Amino acid sequence: MSIAQQSAQGREQRLLDEDRLFPADPGARAVARGLYAHIRDLPVISPHGHTDPRWYAENEAFPDPAELFVVPDHYVFRMLFSQGVKLEELGVPTLDGAPVETDSRKIWRRFAENYYLFRGTPTRIWLDHAFATLFDIDVVLSAKTADFYYERIAERLAQPDYRPRALFERFNIEVIATTESPLDDLRWHKEIAESGWKGRVITAYRPDAVVDPEFQDFQRNIERFGELSGADIGNFAGYLDAHRIRRSFFKSFGATSTDHGHATARTENLDRGEAERLYQKAIKGTISAEEADAFRGHMLTEMARMSLDDGLVMQIHPGSWRSHSKSIFTRFGRDKGFDIPMRTDYVRALKPMLDAVGTEPGLSVILFTLDETAYSRELAPLAGVYPCLKLGPAWWFFDSAEGMRRFRELTTETAGFYNTVGFNDDTRAFCSIPARHDVARRVDCAYLAELVVTGRLREDEAYEVAHDLTYRLVKEAYRL
Amino acid sequence: MSIAQQSAQGREQRLLDEDRLFPADPGARAVARGLYAHIRDLPVISPHGHTDPRWYAENEAFPDPAELFVVPDHYVFRMLFSQGVKLEELGVPTLDGAPVETDSRKIWRRFAENYYLFRGTPTRIWLDHAFATLFDIDVVLSAKTADFYYERIAERLAQPDYRPRALFERFNIEVIATTESPLDDLRWHKEIAESGWKGRVITAYRPDAVVDPEFQDFQRNIERFGELSGADIGNFAGYLDAHRIRRSFFKSFGATSTDHGHATARTENLDRGEAERLYQKAIKGTISAEEADAFRGHMLTEMARMSLDDGLVMQIHPGSWRSHSKSIFTRFGRDKGFDIPMRTDYVRALKPMLDAVGTEPGLSVILFTLDETAYSRELAPLAGVYPCLKLGPAWWFFDSAEGMRRFRELTTETAGFYNTVGFNDDTRAFCSIPARHDVARRVDCAYLAELVVTGRLREDEAYEVAHDLTYRLVKEAYRL
Amino acid sequence: MSIAQQSAQGREQRLLDEDRLFPADPGARAVARGLYAHIRDLPVISPHGHTDPRWYAENEAFPDPAELFVVPDHYVFRMLFSQGVKLEELGVPTLDGAPVETDSRKIWRRFAENYYLFRGTPTRIWLDHAFATLFDIDVVLSAKTADFYYERIAERLAQPDYRPRALFERFNIEVIATTESPLDDLRWHKEIAESGWKGRVITAYRPDAVVDPEFQDFQRNIERFGELSGADIGNFAGYLDAHRIRRSFFKSFGATSTDHGHATARTENLDRGEAERLYQKAIKGTISAEEADAFRGHMLTEMARMSLDDGLVMQIHPGSWRSHSKSIFTRFGRDKGFDIPMRTDYVRALKPMLDAVGTEPGLSVILFTLDETAYSRELAPLAGVYPCLKLGPAWWFFDSAEGMRRFRELTTETAGFYNTVGFNDDTRAFCSIPARHDVARRVDCAYLAELVVTGRLREDEAYEVAHDLTYRLVKEAYRL
Repeated sequence: MSIAQQSAQGREQRLLDEDRLFPADPGARAVARGLYAHIRDLPVISPHGHTDPRWYAENEAFPDPAELFVVPDHYVFRMLFSQGVKLEELGVPTLDGAPVETDSRKIWRRFAENYYLFRGTPTRIWLDHAFATLFDIDVVLSAKTADFYYERIAERLAQPDYRPRALFERFNIEVIATTESPLDDLRWHKEIAESGWKGRVITAYRPDAVVDPEFQDFQRNIERFGELSGADIGNFAGYLDAHRIRRSFFKSFGATSTDHGHATARTENLDRGEAERLYQKAIKGTISAEEADAFRGHMLTEMARMSLDDGLVMQIHPGSWRSHSKSIFTRFGRDKGFDIPMRTDYVRALKPMLDAVGTEPGLSVILFTLDETAYSRELAPLAGVYPCLKLGPAWWFFDSAEGMRRFRELTTETAGFYNTVGFNDDTRAFCSIPARHDVARRVDCAYLAELVVTGRLREDEAYEVAHDLTYRLVKEAYRL
Repeated sequence: MSIAQQSAQGREQRLLDEDRLFPADPGARAVARGLYAHIRDLPVISPHGHTDPRWYAENEAFPDPAELFVVPDHYVFRMLFSQGVKLEELGVPTLDGAPVETDSRKIWRRFAENYYLFRGTPTRIWLDHAFATLFDIDVVLSAKTADFYYERIAERLAQPDYRPRALFERFNIEVIATTESPLDDLRWHKEIAESGWKGRVITAYRPDAVVDPEFQDFQRNIERFGELSGADIGNFAGYLDAHRIRRSFFKSFGATSTDHGHATARTENLDRGEAERLYQKAIKGTISAEEADAFRGHMLTEMARMSLDDGLVMQIHPGSWRSHSKSIFTRFGRDKGFDIPMRTDYVRALKPMLDAVGTEPGLSVILFTLDETAYSRELAPLAGVYPCLKLGPAWWFFDSAEGMRRFRELTTETAGFYNTVGFNDDTRAFCSIPARHDVARRVDCAYLAELVVTGRLREDEAYEVAHDLTYRLVKEAYRL
Repeated sequence: MSIAQQSAQGREQRLLDEDRLFPADPGARAVARGLYAHIRDLPVISPHGHTDPRWYAENEAFPDPAELFVVPDHYVFRMLFSQGVKLEELGVPTLDGAPVETDSRKIWRRFAENYYLFRGTPTRIWLDHAFATLFDIDVVLSAKTADFYYERIAERLAQPDYRPRALFERFNIEVIATTESPLDDLRWHKEIAESGWKGRVITAYRPDAVVDPEFQDFQRNIERFGELSGADIGNFAGYLDAHRIRRSFFKSFGATSTDHGHATARTENLDRGEAERLYQKAIKGTISAEEADAFRGHMLTEMARMSLDDGLVMQIHPGSWRSHSKSIFTRFGRDKGFDIPMRTDYVRALKPMLDAVGTEPGLSVILFTLDETAYSRELAPLAGVYPCLKLGPAWWFFDSAEGMRRFRELTTETAGFYNTVGFNDDTRAFCSIPARHDVARRVDCAYLAELVVTGRLREDEAYEVAHDLTYRLVKEAYRL
């Protein structure tokens, strides 16, 4: 008899516990179960994420288990890398084309034998959820079960009901947003629109490539921006016009939001002459680091002004030191798990934009953070008073059970529930979407149940709040 | 049958849950109940707050429900404003006298229909407590119950036992401190003293208006300071004398403490020549921002020195960016819910003062924070070794169930219980005082109960600690 | 009948609760008990600490209760000092030899009558554990029981089985590391090695005295460094050789690690000319504060390079403002309880070292922090991707039940369990070692039990993780 059997005391060891993430206390658990039953089957609203619109346009089968679950998932390969597995061994492509592992089954085995590393992480919860609910697997992934897993998943992926559109419907997605650069021609969105398929896939306007003078190929990007928009990008006024034109184009493919991923939350409200001066230096490539930062900050205020006109909701995702390792960036490029959070200030940083437009009716700015210390100190106090500010959900490293719990504990008392906007999955890992939304729903129900049993919220109100957090607030906040 | 009824499973839905804020676990809850029963009825000691001494002096009826609960409460109107209600609609007066809503019943209805916004916030707990215990109401405030509420409250406010002195006695207040500027003539305190009423209302010395060179009308304030004190405020020595004289005057009206609300915790210990130089620039209005900051910092050390002489306890309340929104400040002035916490350093900031007087016997400095990250990193380690330093309770946005719990969890292990000073309500919302103290008592009992059931504190000791946290420590710390 | 008796409701009031630190919820508690039973009796691995090797070499009896538990323990005397007890009254020696209390019994009584100050602190748990398990005491220390305690402890300390080696064996220590400066001749380690005693006591290389140009007597230290190593410390290359030679000497006494206690986590990777220039200024005493900081930062990278050669594991313990009080430092010197944590940045600070050697196989750097905000924001994301980085356990003020719980809650979701290194006691309080390891084991079991009952970890896996956290990870991480 194994240790596990000795110790398990009859506890059921399914891959998914029906009561997962609910409070341990039986009284609170009962309340959480009731709340969850009430909202579990609501449609998924995914207002911000990074799935590939091509999937929905072409509706091809996903290639294989490793290509689906390992190679493109930075949560997965960063953990394996941290324990000495080379990115090459996981099939992560090099920039210079140096050969990497191409045998999917080998990659999968490497992943499987290291799957224990994910104990206690959200990745484990997401993956187990997909394995159990999509592939009807009920044993833990390990070296021993690697081949069983591989074959089961590969077999299913070949079936028509595992193609993107079928999964989209199975996942009960009411609407999903992708994220594109202004330089994107939105051809996949066009194909989707013309295909007659009823799935609602919309785009979002993410202009970093033409707003950040330090973005790779900025000058070339601006030229292309001019071509696509037809605006005169030789001066700042024309450059703003180009944004207006592309925003309008994005709106025609359903966009209701913009997204801004700067290193800090800095905003500026420069006078027009100074903005023009910085823009000229930016397009000539002579802008200093400080000036580039000021320009990015000013563009947030300009984007807010455009939002007042066209109604697009702004999202600000600041605070990541992108590509922290020089050697990994040089060999593999961006988005390789080396984006590290930094301390982030909001109070001083947002003031110029807030003084410019912060009390205007109709503006909506959703703030995210990778610095949890800002929740109770800065973000909840700001969102709890400025009508334009709302708090985005726990993000990235904090899109996790503890992360979401801390988000509620640290923001609710000051900002309430109604200055938050429900959940974002923010993922390109398509199969993790149901799991991520399920975790958010469970954690919110657990939090509400704690409030109920400790006399801080009436149970009838908790039912209403649970529904609002799952469905109503996200639709309202993102104007969906 | 409504959702709430379906889900409630027989749970009692009173406005106030008898066991609110106690642990969910039945074993821990039983211990918490026992502790709470032991300290629930102890008198309220309110050593720091902002109630208006005029109330106690004149003992007039409070005007109406909206004027009591909505118009002056920045917790209330900031939340409503964050969701699009205009301050004008809530009767908040404009600086230029532009008209605002004056119909109290309309204001009350606006508040009532938005009362759901406060779910999960301390404001909800405070208000429900007042509604239930003072006005015998047992339904939730909403659009539907707005008028019932309004009439019940208005009716009661007209009764003699709802006048300030009767409420003071009903609230079981042993002593309450108000907060006045050195420029205040303390006439209301004088009236109270001469009235023969036995309620103990004392003042506290809050000299920001004559210490902060960037305070509105600083030069005029200094002139008035000279007149009131009779000291020669033309030089720094005379200016310090003016403080000594006014501190002594405040002491004659019961003051046992001073209070300092600077933007940062910076202290300085300048030599006399430098202090004189900065003072001269301050009174001439030629002081720079950095010099003004140094001057404020130096004055904390001077105040500490005076405390060594006259025994007044110092309170430092740093870290608020006051009046963050330019447009709101311009239209409505200070204290309109736009004070936002900032990151606050204590280790470097307090060193000059601590090196000057930090190990002197008799000095007592109570530190507050709006930056919870300082609790475990800076404040508990400092208060856990410097004999002059004590930790004030969770403050402002953190005067809440979760905020108080975090305060205990983050400070007790390093500073213990005995370097803390019990509870401050710090409020001008008179009717919230019993609720606020009750929340603090419940949260402390819940925390102690958790320690007891997890074997970290003996139950007999927990009873003693509960009493100390509620009553003994605050009287000792504030020398009451 | 006392309050405690009235309230205790039959709760057992032993000095140690058998279930201490386990979850309150009965279901979770049962799981925690099972996990704890599985790992409770594993040997103690103490890879980093400050016990005195002379104890094990000479194996003399500890002098008396006050000298064992009060006089040398900064956790103890800092708390007493914070409440007005003078260090002199506790027998803490002055630098100038001014007389201090020498009557151990008087010191002990002072401590006993103030023992209530430690309620809720880890010191209380550690001391009660030692009193109960080593001295068979089952009443709380207080003024009333002071003499009983003193006599019992004194009597036992005189017995042979209370000598250091006997306690070492009784504590079930498999290996313990001490910490020495490169200027130490390791004579006590030599004596231990030659004594034939089988206890495994190893050293660790802590070069602050010869790496930090602002260290007391730096120039004299460097000279002595040259003498001990035989290297030419007149230039930087020779100085690096001196390190290599002393590291090798330390390895011959079992060292598997180095340790670095800088004020910040700053690293630099200077070119050789700049390093030489700073070194020359350092040994001439003409180095500026900024240059000294850069030099310390560069030396961390040099130490990492040496670790690649000789396999010593690096530990970085940054973020303490040492000797914060000028007057205490002047009168009593270092390590008097006045070391205060500071905000600490890792993302920018470590980049130069990480860019130089961060993805090299074989390097191992263990990071500690006194700034808990870095756990989830910086440390877990860094350790969750860089193969050389591991997270040291909750340290110093956070070596406590709540501190350890926060460590797991804030790091596990991003870095997992396998980028952590088990527990360090980091103490010179020998008798607290079993208690400290017991607390860590209990808190980890409580955390794992919570994961199990909330469906986030299977129970069989929790047993494996519990064993890993207690035993396997520390041995692997420290190469023991």
